[in-house]
Order: sequence, then C-alpha cells, then structure tokens
Amino acid sequence: ADLGRLLVRCQDQPGIVAAVSTFLTAAGANVVSLAQHSTAPEGGTFFQRTEFHLPALPAALPDLHARFAEQVAAPFQMDFTLTDAAHHQRVALMVSRTDHCAMDLLWRTRRGELPMTVAMVISNHPDLAEEVRSFGVPFVHVPATRDNRAQAEARVLELLAGNVDLVVLARYMQIITPAFLERVGCPLINIHHSFLPAFIGAGPYAKAKQRGVKLIGATAHYVTAELDEGPIIEQDVVRVGHQHDTPDLVRLGADVERAVLSRAVRWHVEDRVLRHEGTTVVL
Amino acid sequence: ADLGRLLVRCQDQPGIVAAVSTFLTAAGANVVSLAQHSTAPEGGTFFQRTEFHLPALPAALPDLHARFAEQVAAPFQMDFTLTDAAHHQRVALMVSRTDHCAMDLLWRTRRGELPMTVAMVISNHPDLAEEVRSFGVPFVHVPATRDNRAQAEARVLELLAGNVDLVVLARYMQIITPAFLERVGCPLINIHHSFLPAFIGAGPYAKAKQRGVKLIGATAHYVTAELDEGPIIEQDVVRVGHQHDTPDLVRLGADVERAVLSRAVRWHVEDRVLRHEGTTVVL
Amino acid sequence: ADLGRLLVRCQDQPGIVAAVSTFLTAAGANVVSLAQHSTAPEGGTFFQRTEFHLPALPAALPDLHARFAEQVAAPFQMDFTLTDAAHHQRVALMVSRTDHCAMDLLWRTRRGELPMTVAMVISNHPDLAEEVRSFGVPFVHVPATRDNRAQAEARVLELLAGNVDLVVLARYMQIITPAFLERVGCPLINIHHSFLPAFIGAGPYAKAKQRGVKLIGATAHYVTAELDEGPIIEQDVVRVGHQHDTPDLVRLGADVERAVLSRAVRWHVEDRVLRHEGTTVVL
Amino acid sequence: ADLGRLLVRCQDQPGIVAAVSTFLTAAGANVVSLAQHSTAPEGGTFFQRTEFHLPALPAALPDLHARFAEQVAAPFQMDFTLTDAAHHQRVALMVSRTDHCAMDLLWRTRRGELPMTVAMVISNHPDLAEEVRSFGVPFVHVPATRDNRAQAEARVLELLAGNVDLVVLARYMQIITPAFLERVGCPLINIHHSFLPAFIGAGPYAKAKQRGVKLIGATAHYVTAELDEGPIIEQDVVRVGHQHDTPDLVRLGADVERAVLSRAVRWHVEDRVLRHEGTTVVL
Repeated sequence: ADLGRLLVRCQDQPGIVAAVSTFLTAAGANVVSLAQHSTAPEGGTFFQRTEFHLPALPAALPDLHARFAEQVAAPFQMDFTLTDAAHHQRVALMVSRTDHCAMDLLWRTRRGELPMTVAMVISNHPDLAEEVRSFGVPFVHVPATRDNRAQAEARVLELLAGNVDLVVLARYMQIITPAFLERVGCPLINIHHSFLPAFIGAGPYAKAKQRGVKLIGATAHYVTAELDEGPIIEQDVVRVGHQHDTPDLVRLGADVERAVLSRAVRWHVEDRVLRHEGTTVVL
Repeated sequence: ADLGRLLVRCQDQPGIVAAVSTFLTAAGANVVSLAQHSTAPEGGTFFQRTEFHLPALPAALPDLHARFAEQVAAPFQMDFTLTDAAHHQRVALMVSRTDHCAMDLLWRTRRGELPMTVAMVISNHPDLAEEVRSFGVPFVHVPATRDNRAQAEARVLELLAGNVDLVVLARYMQIITPAFLERVGCPLINIHHSFLPAFIGAGPYAKAKQRGVKLIGATAHYVTAELDEGPIIEQDVVRVGHQHDTPDLVRLGADVERAVLSRAVRWHVEDRVLRHEGTTVVL
Repeated sequence: ADLGRLLVRCQDQPGIVAAVSTFLTAAGANVVSLAQHSTAPEGGTFFQRTEFHLPALPAALPDLHARFAEQVAAPFQMDFTLTDAAHHQRVALMVSRTDHCAMDLLWRTRRGELPMTVAMVISNHPDLAEEVRSFGVPFVHVPATRDNRAQAEARVLELLAGNVDLVVLARYMQIITPAFLERVGCPLINIHHSFLPAFIGAGPYAKAKQRGVKLIGATAHYVTAELDEGPIIEQDVVRVGHQHDTPDLVRLGADVERAVLSRAVRWHVEDRVLRHEGTTVVL
Repeated sequence: ADLGRLLVRCQDQPGIVAAVSTFLTAAGANVVSLAQHSTAPEGGTFFQRTEFHLPALPAALPDLHARFAEQVAAPFQMDFTLTDAAHHQRVALMVSRTDHCAMDLLWRTRRGELPMTVAMVISNHPDLAEEVRSFGVPFVHVPATRDNRAQAEARVLELLAGNVDLVVLARYMQIITPAFLERVGCPLINIHHSFLPAFIGAGPYAKAKQRGVKLIGATAHYVTAELDEGPIIEQDVVRVGHQHDTPDLVRLGADVERAVLSRAVRWHVEDRVLRHEGTTVVL
C-alpha cells in the first residue's frame, strides 16, 4: 500500500530525471523503481515510469498531482499520469464464442495474478453466460451482426460509459468501427494469431499448414482505426511441425494467445505500457 | 559406415511400410531408424525415411537400387532415393558482403558438425576471399549487377554444373531468375529475416522497430520461382524490446539467421527434408 | 474412430518393423503413423508406436490381440499393448491446496484438449471441493498427515482400485510411500519445479532468487521409489530476472508447471510415452 | 562518443536518484539511459546504472570523478564506477582444447559485436595457436597439469598483471585456485553446461541422456572460491529428445554455451552487471 506510479512523456531534454526525482524526494516520497527510455540520442521522446512509496498516499494524491503539474510538468511540457497502485483498473472483456482468452483472464484475476477488476463481460453470443457468472462477474449479451452494428455498438457504449478503464477484446469476432473507437473513451487491447510470414484473410492456420510453417504465434496490440495494425504490446510463438494438423495448430495457438494476452493486460494495468506513434515502450 | 538412407514418396495405401521393411530385411539390412508421415488419413501422400545398416553397403548399393525399383517402387508408383550416408553432399555457398551465415556454415563444416563438403563459395563481391580460402575452400568472385545478370548467372551455372548437390544462398543479395532455377539442376536453400507480422520491402528491421515488435526471426526455405515463398524448412525467433535500436535488431537477427540456416542445411544434407507441394516434411 | 494403437518393446533385431507391419497389413489394417526408436545401433532396445485404421476395430480387437501375441510378440519376445484410441483412460488427480495444475487439467479435459476422463479428484484438504465438482467430477477429501499416512494411503488405494488407469499428482504435497507405489497398479505422473542448477530442499524459489538464476522451470516425470528421480517425460522453462521477486517466480513457475504437466499427461494418455530403465521415449 | 557510464551501489534510502541526476545535470550531462533496482522495498541495497552524454567527456572525466566522489558518493556511502563507454575493456581468454566458445568471442569481437579488446588468449594446450593468431591476437601456451599448477598459475598471473580488465574462462578445463582468484585483480567469467535437474561430476551429458532430460542448458557466472557456485549472469537452454545421442547433446550444448557466454561477456563489458552477495543485477 501507499505505492504510487508516475508516468511521464515529453520531448527529451537535459534535467528531466533530476527534476522528477527531486520533486518526489522533496514531497517525502521514496523511489522504489524507475525505468526510462528515450527514442533517440538527440531530439527523441522521453518516457519514464516511477514507482514510489509515500505515506498516506491516497490522501496526498490530489495535492501531489496539482503540484507536479505546476512545478514539473508545465516547464517540461510533459504528459503525465499519477496513480495509486492500490486502485485497480476496471476492465470489460468482450468475447464471442471462443472462450480460452476470456476464461484465462477471469481465472488469473480470481487467483490474484492480475491487479484489476473485471467489471463485466460483453458477448455477442449467450453461450458463456453461466461460466462467466460463476466468477461473480456480470455477463451481458449484446447480439451483434453486420446488420445491427450501429445499434449494437451504441448498446455496448452505453454499458461501458464511465464504468471501465480498459476494454479487452478477448477473441471478439465483430469489427470495431472507428466511430466506436472515437467514443469509447478508454484504450482497447486485442489479441490475434500471428505467423512468420503473415497469412492474410480467412483460415490462416490452414494457410500456414500449407506453407509448412514451423512457428505459430500471437500478438497483443492496442486497437486503432487500422484493423490489426495497432502498436504491439506483446508477442510469443510456439514450435510446430508437419505432424500437427490444422486443429492441433488452432489448439496450440490458443495456448499462446492466452499467455500473450494475459501478459499484455497485466503490463497495461500495472501502467507499464506507454504508446508512442505506432509503437509501445514497456517499462 | 555402411549406413544407408531410403526416402520414399507415394500415394498413401495399405502395405507400404510392410513392403519396404520386408524388402530391406530380405536384403540383409537392419532398420536403424524409420520415420513416416501421411498428409491425410484417407487419400493423402505418404512419406518415409528409413536408415538401415547393411554390411558392405557401397558395393551392394547399385544392385539394391535396381531391385528396390523393380520390386517395391514400381508396384507402389513410388518416388525414391537410396543413398549412402557416408557420401557427403557437395555444397556451393553463394554470398554477398554479409558474412555471418557463410562463415557459420564453413566453421561448422570444419568442426564436423555438418556432414557435407563445401565445394566452393561464389560471391558477387571480392571481400570474403581471404577468409573463405583460410578454410581451404575455393572462392570465386562473379560480379553481378542488374545490368549483367544473364551473363553472371551463366558464369555461375558453369561453375556449378555437375559439381554440386545443393546451393545455399547464405545472404546472397542478388535476384535469382526462374531461368537460373530451371537450369541449375539442384535445390537451393535461402535464408531471410521474418517477423510477426511480416514487413514487406526494404528496411524491414526499421519497420519492425516502428511497430514495436517483440520477436524477430528468420526463415530458411527452398527457393522457388515465387520470391521468398518457397517451402519452409526451419524458423526461429529471438525476443527483443524497445531498448533495442535498429542495429541491435540486425545483430540479433544475424544470430537467428545463422542458427536457422545451419539447422536447415544440416537436415537437408542428412536427407531429412521431403518437399510436397508448398510445404516440407522434416523426418 | 476405428483407430488402434500398438506399442511394442523388445531387444533390437532385424525384421521387427517388417514383421509388425506385415501382420497389420494382412489383418486388413492401414498404418496411419509409425514412430520407432532404438537405444543403440547394436544390441539396443527397440520401441515402436504404430497407429492404424481397421474397420470395426472394437469387435476385432480381442482376436487381433491374441493373434499378434502368438504370431509376432512371441517369436520376437516383445512386450506390447494394443488399444483402441477411442477408449479414454480414466485418470485420478491428487492435489493439495495449490490448484493451478489440477484446474488446468480439468479445464483442458472439458475443452476436449485431453482425450481422457477425470474419474475423481482426491485431496488432503477440502478447499477445492466446490470448484472441482463444478466440472461434474467427484471430489474426495482424504485427510493425510505424517501421523495417519498408512491409513490415508489405504483409503486412497481403496478409491483407486480398479477405477483408474493413471494417477496424476497435480501438486500433491504428501510423500508417496514405496508401499503405495507397489500396490497402486497404475503409473503415477508428478510435476515439480526445476532449476539450472538444482536447488535442493525447502524454499527453492528463494534459493534460486539468491543465486540470480535467469531461468526457472518444471519437470513432469513418472514417480518411482526414488523421490523426484523418476523418468522425465517433459520439461520447460521461463526466463526471469532480478526484477522478479520470489512471489513473481512462484507465479511464473506455476504457469510453466501447468503447461508441462498438461503436455506430459496428454502424451501419456495418447500412448506416446514408453519407459525404459531410467528414461523415456516419447514417440 | 562522449558517452559516460556511472554505476552506483549503496544502502537504499530516499533521495539517491535525485542526488545523482541533479549532479549530472549540473555538470552539463544529459542522461541517455537510467536503470535501477532495489533488493527490497525497505532496507534493501540500491543499484543504478546511468548512461549520459557529456561534451568532451575524456577531458572532463577526472574532475567529474573527484566531484562525484565528494558531493554524492561520500554522503550516501556509495560504491561507484565512472567510465567512458569508448574505452574498451581488455579481456584475456583462457581455453583448453574445446574451441567453440573462444572462437565465438574472437569472431564477434572482430565483427564489432562486442565492445572490447581481446588482449591475449592463454591455453594449456598449443592446439589453437594458429587459429587465434589469424585474428591478430597473441596466443600464449602455458602448460598446466595437476603437478605444475602453482607454477602455471604464477606464469598466467604474470601475463595478466596490469594487462587486462576481465578474464573469460572459455572452456578452460583446469581448476582455478582460491590463491589465483585473490591475486588476479579482475573478475573472471566462466561458462558451464547446466541441466534441470543438475547432474554432478563427470559425464553430465551421458547422465542427462540416461534420465531422459528434455532440455540442456548453459550458465555463465562469475568465478568465486566455490567452484561453479558464483553469481549467475546468464542462462539459456535448448530442447532435446530421445532421438539425440550423447554426441548430439554435446554439439547442441556447445551452441548454447557460446550464445550464453557471449551475452554474459557483452553485458559485463558494457558495465551492465552488478554483483551483490551471491547474485547479479543486470541493468
């Protein structure tokens, strides 16, 4: 408890680390961990994640925020967030019929492995209702098809509005429109299969099989208007061979998908992931 | 010594394993290892690799070949090869300026890790002459540019004709024409970088960096008329992060490239790789 | 359906593969896959796993077994098993308080990823009763401590007798006595953490942390009278660093443990694992 | 150029990061990268590695060192080192007959992958003389056996004295005595094979084979008086199976050994590795 997290981003320039750490020390905080990154030796963008211990943090936070904004963020033209690590992010999962990713996140959250609260699960199919509710998590069925997309998205936005800090597409097979992204007001993380090289379109595991690929993988990324082109948070692969048929590839792919997604979500809710143009910095 | 290798490929049908193994047993051979694969439970293509021990194999091979052709291959309409494992394949390396793949193959061959003979190294640059020759391997400089492609390929074909069983493109940066492939008379293995997802065109490491990829990899494949689209023999990846700049990615990629290429070449010269349509079976 | 599995083990000698495959072909079976291994070029032990398709297999199996015993197994002095792949093995899980391995096996079985039936879960603690029963699997609480070991083992043997083909120790923290092993009448698979190098005794993750290990792993093995020294079925590792504290290592270790255990159990129930002296052959 | 590296270690306490970064900023330096670690939330040991850019660093370094010692290191009771990244460490390799690790380090150094200078190679066998000298590196043969150990170590110490910053035991099969360690005056890095679980004594690959291990690995560590028990810098593994015989394990182990050793050496000469009691922090 009393663990705070400060994330900053600004144009790289001399004196940032000194200014931030001097501010925290003066405020009575002790730096517990500090990671930083600059995108270039000269003229790059600077990122820093600082965890600090400050007695009675919850009470001190508003004032600390105001003073940091004025004394440090303003002169350095910084973007920053200042949060209490004890405050769990509220997360909505969206899922279609394939359950492995959503179940893995619910399970890990219950085991205490993911510092977050699953606020709700939204699905365009009713299939997973019972299983989700056995975790004590609300399940909402919002039928979605090509024909009622606008209406379905409006219903989902209504459910999410003001209620969540993050949406995880845990194998949600409907398209997310740019209009939805503009209005949702929080980041979305998606998971999808990945191959070397990529196999575009339907049936990618079957195509990978035809080409004799030896590795199948998964990528977790932030959702942007360009489908499956958002900044990558995490990736992993598993080795396969000619002895695996397409259903084997799907099964092995499922294991990689849930491992990669759970790591990406964990890093996000621990405030480790900073977005920058098309990429991420994981501190 | 006296270790033979029999590779067969045919339409899958009952009795193949029995026919092959009964033939070998009757011929006085002892099966040392046997691996097989069928592409489908019904109506697939069948592949088998058998290693066997037969006293005085070199003397017995021509007769064994003739009898297998008549007694087994003909009735089952099999493709087959029958080789003496002691007979090393002769391999030509083609390389441009980047030396890590060619050096790794030369080094492993000298250490006895690759059962093959490097017959020659052909390069479109003179840079590696001295280093290659220190391994006791002939180095031939064949300048190749867009403008003299036909002439350069003719010169290379002249050098290879009848002299090699395999060509390895160990980071050879010139395009190989379909005309060359038709005339070369032996398989070619190529190595190239790979990513999840793929980044097409020039500067792939820089593009991967911009997207925040967490894994970079390499693919070894047979060369076909479709550039970089041939059947995959082997792949691997290495984990990277935001802290790696583009030169780091290139350096780490080089390590994966040489590991993947040396495994692919090893499996090929051990007669483990069977091609089938766009894929491979590695037995 | 109608998929049979034949496992054989005998002294290596010429003609085994031919005899087995000729027998199957004559019986009207089609070999679907065949894998074999010999422990030495001369005088080794030979192992073979053959999957075959035979119409109306369930009805044909008893007669096939009797004829194989007489015509092939007897002359070659073979051990063999002949099974119907459609017949799922009955598996008992034994677990203490830590649930990740048992839950993973129950979950994968329900998803159809593991071709087996979980016949019961036995625990020396009542904690997991509700969760196990939600999978429709009987849960039996058999309190076990140092003081009542003989009595507790007798109770467990009573539950298992005649009911199961395999016992999986899915993080069962009580010692298994040699007397129990002699009487249980089926194989046991255990999972435990593993490190390079090994850290013996209590608190291995803390010891690994003190030494700065960069990889933590898990080993699944058959249980023998020598504690944690039985033949290894599967192993894997995950990369760690100084930034991980001991609870992180435990959490990451749990992920490796369940992945390794589920693979080992899967291979066992698919009749892929042959034991030989202190080792295994996974075909 | 003009890139400096500051490593500090002290009792964790509030204000360290602020003091260090404020000092550097006041000195006109720009922090390029900063990584830190504390071994415990309260009362731990604190480590920090800072890379900074300072114009005309070589000329400024002596004064910077003196002022840092007085203004920061003294009040915080810090250990610290302050170096110019352009100043390559001088490294001696010690090797017996097995060449893969020494060759890999020489090769990577020539390719510019390792920012260091190989000052000499010392071997207790003459075998590698020619190959080492082809890299332009002095090779010194110091015969060493059980009988002349004291004399041989004296000769090696004479060669090293004042000439090197690091000794790498690149498969050097002679015992290093505590007396040697006391007098050598620089750190030693060793590489050795590693398994899960460990196999002690001679012939570890054969023992691993008998147990059916599925992973073989390598560990690079600092040498301490306890043989093979020093703080671990890096580890890695490769997957193996029953199809690999003991020579295969040795060959695959060699690949892991050179990969692990080259990473450990790289991190050491980049001043990334801090020792702390029995462990390391790699920043």
